[in-house]
Amino acid sequence: MTQIPETMFAVLQTGDGYSGQATGPAISDASDYLENGEIAVPTPGPGQVLIKLRVASVNPSDMHFIKGEYGQPRVKGHPAGFEGCGDVVATGKGAEGLAGQRVAFVAAGSGAWADYVVTQAQMCIPLRPDISDEDGAAQIVNPLTAMAMVDIAKSEGDAFVISAATSQLGKLMCMLGRDLGLKPIALVRRAEAIEPLKELGAAEVLVTSDPDMLKKFAKISAELKPRVFLDAVSNQQSEQIFAAMPNRARWVSYGKLDAELPSLSRMGQLVFMGKKIEGFWLTNWMMTTPPADQGRVVAEVQARFADGRWKTDVSAHLPLRDVVSGLADALKKTDGKVMITP
Amino acid sequence: MTQIPETMFAVLQTGDGYSGQATGPAISDASDYLENGEIAVPTPGPGQVLIKLRVASVNPSDMHFIKGEYGQPRVKGHPAGFEGCGDVVATGKGAEGLAGQRVAFVAAGSGAWADYVVTQAQMCIPLRPDISDEDGAAQIVNPLTAMAMVDIAKSEGDAFVISAATSQLGKLMCMLGRDLGLKPIALVRRAEAIEPLKELGAAEVLVTSDPDMLKKFAKISAELKPRVFLDAVSNQQSEQIFAAMPNRARWVSYGKLDAELPSLSRMGQLVFMGKKIEGFWLTNWMMTTPPADQGRVVAEVQARFADGRWKTDVSAHLPLRDVVSGLADALKKTDGKVMITP
Repeated sequence: MTQIPETMFAVLQTGDGYSGQATGPAISDASDYLENGEIAVPTPGPGQVLIKLRVASVNPSDMHFIKGEYGQPRVKGHPAGFEGCGDVVATGKGAEGLAGQRVAFVAAGSGAWADYVVTQAQMCIPLRPDISDEDGAAQIVNPLTAMAMVDIAKSEGDAFVISAATSQLGKLMCMLGRDLGLKPIALVRRAEAIEPLKELGAAEVLVTSDPDMLKKFAKISAELKPRVFLDAVSNQQSEQIFAAMPNRARWVSYGKLDAELPSLSRMGQLVFMGKKIEGFWLTNWMMTTPPADQGRVVAEVQARFADGRWKTDVSAHLPLRDVVSGLADALKKTDGKVMITP
Repeated sequence: MTQIPETMFAVLQTGDGYSGQATGPAISDASDYLENGEIAVPTPGPGQVLIKLRVASVNPSDMHFIKGEYGQPRVKGHPAGFEGCGDVVATGKGAEGLAGQRVAFVAAGSGAWADYVVTQAQMCIPLRPDISDEDGAAQIVNPLTAMAMVDIAKSEGDAFVISAATSQLGKLMCMLGRDLGLKPIALVRRAEAIEPLKELGAAEVLVTSDPDMLKKFAKISAELKPRVFLDAVSNQQSEQIFAAMPNRARWVSYGKLDAELPSLSRMGQLVFMGKKIEGFWLTNWMMTTPPADQGRVVAEVQARFADGRWKTDVSAHLPLRDVVSGLADALKKTDGKVMITP
């Protein structure tokens, strides 16, 4: 294996814990939240691996996180960054199988915006040789999440509901839904999104500001019987959509784009209609889904990148050492992902 | 088999659908909701059985139901009554295995307060010969529900939370919890209930009106780590209790004693802590739980009645033909169940 140095360059969080605010992913200057640093290369513990970074990608969740507005607390002095791809250069006990492999990863131990990264073996996916480093660096947070959530929807029937459907994840889920012969019902904020989403694969598109929206949804729900609601918004309208879904419906929240707290108007539906309210978090999915189910979903994602059905649009390249000074500017282009290289 | 007559005596619902009110189980005169009638003996369809009634019991859910305040709609002209015991005298296709058996049942087809009752085979439990008709007539709605819910709690750990713990069901669950080596955490409305519930088996008892209740609960939760909340109240305090429970906690609602709508203050816990909100309805449990799991739970209930650990307290006996005129009076004694005989 490669010689591993004692220290490394890393982009470090300057904030600690939660900010208590909810201001969204936008930043005007990354140095408000991050600083350059030289820290010890971490050692992988049991079940962990050490990865030498090839490429890290930037996701909205990284921005929520460094601002202290994500579901996990910041740790001051630890590297930022969730997602990337690189080579496993050291392994802890029980993770030896990954030694030497090129992997896509999500960082659960130390952040991805560093020369070296520690994470759990379960958070790594060995990459097929025909997948590029950049596709590998952006393969998990959006594509795998989309595939894993659509897989849940598919297990319950053919129709499912997606809120905030114009997001990257929403669009991926519409495309996937159609590819798999399912019927995505897309919820959007603006009428201009109706046609593009139908072209991508949505069976129905509803505009959330339409005063007749719930009436229209009830009609579609009675006809298509969607059993799963993949919801990034989680507000009162979400609750009303869930209440209009048929028996055995699952409201699966994976985000909270609206601060409004939904109140449960139809508790009895949980009892008498077998409905459920739950969440989806990819980290949890990767840590707990049986290997066979996970393997099926991962293989489907990699096949799509390998044969070109999916590709990662890159809007900017940023050297790791320029993240603090250059990230805010790089994020101004919104036609793809920012890729960070050591 | 017995000769089956063409018509039968039955106590019929006079209301239809839902009342739109929530006034609780009390009635001043059963004739406000019920009337005597002579109707055709029903014919069991596929998967159903016809039962000749031995004894029917009266539960609070019967009162909610005839008043139009239950989670299922009334059907005018159909018999009332959910629970009883009797002999299977005719079977539909696929239900032949129950022919001639004495069973405990919940009525899903036509009500239990009639000479004959039709229900699904899955809603019948063949009775051991050493169980009395009266214990058989009150074996499902409370005892089996308690056992099935505690079985869910047990599958997730040793501590669990029970609201409205002074109800018959709540007390049964406390007793069962201790018997099975678990730690029931009981929530009650009045401080007088603390000692009796501790004697029954509660590991901890909290009074919901105590201003420090949530603080005390958080401390107990951190220590005992309850993963299941069996909740008959389902109000905002329930939501706060759920929010104070550890990761993977399940809020299992089985009733709505408080009309207040809970608002979900910690949606992110569903995502990042893997918490879930769901319901429990015995009918659904009986229709969908795998036979082996169901058999284990049923056998445990029958063993308790057979060896005398459990018995049904009977407060009054009421002939079927006197239900309309006498039920309100019979329910005034609250030290046991009213038993109805043909």
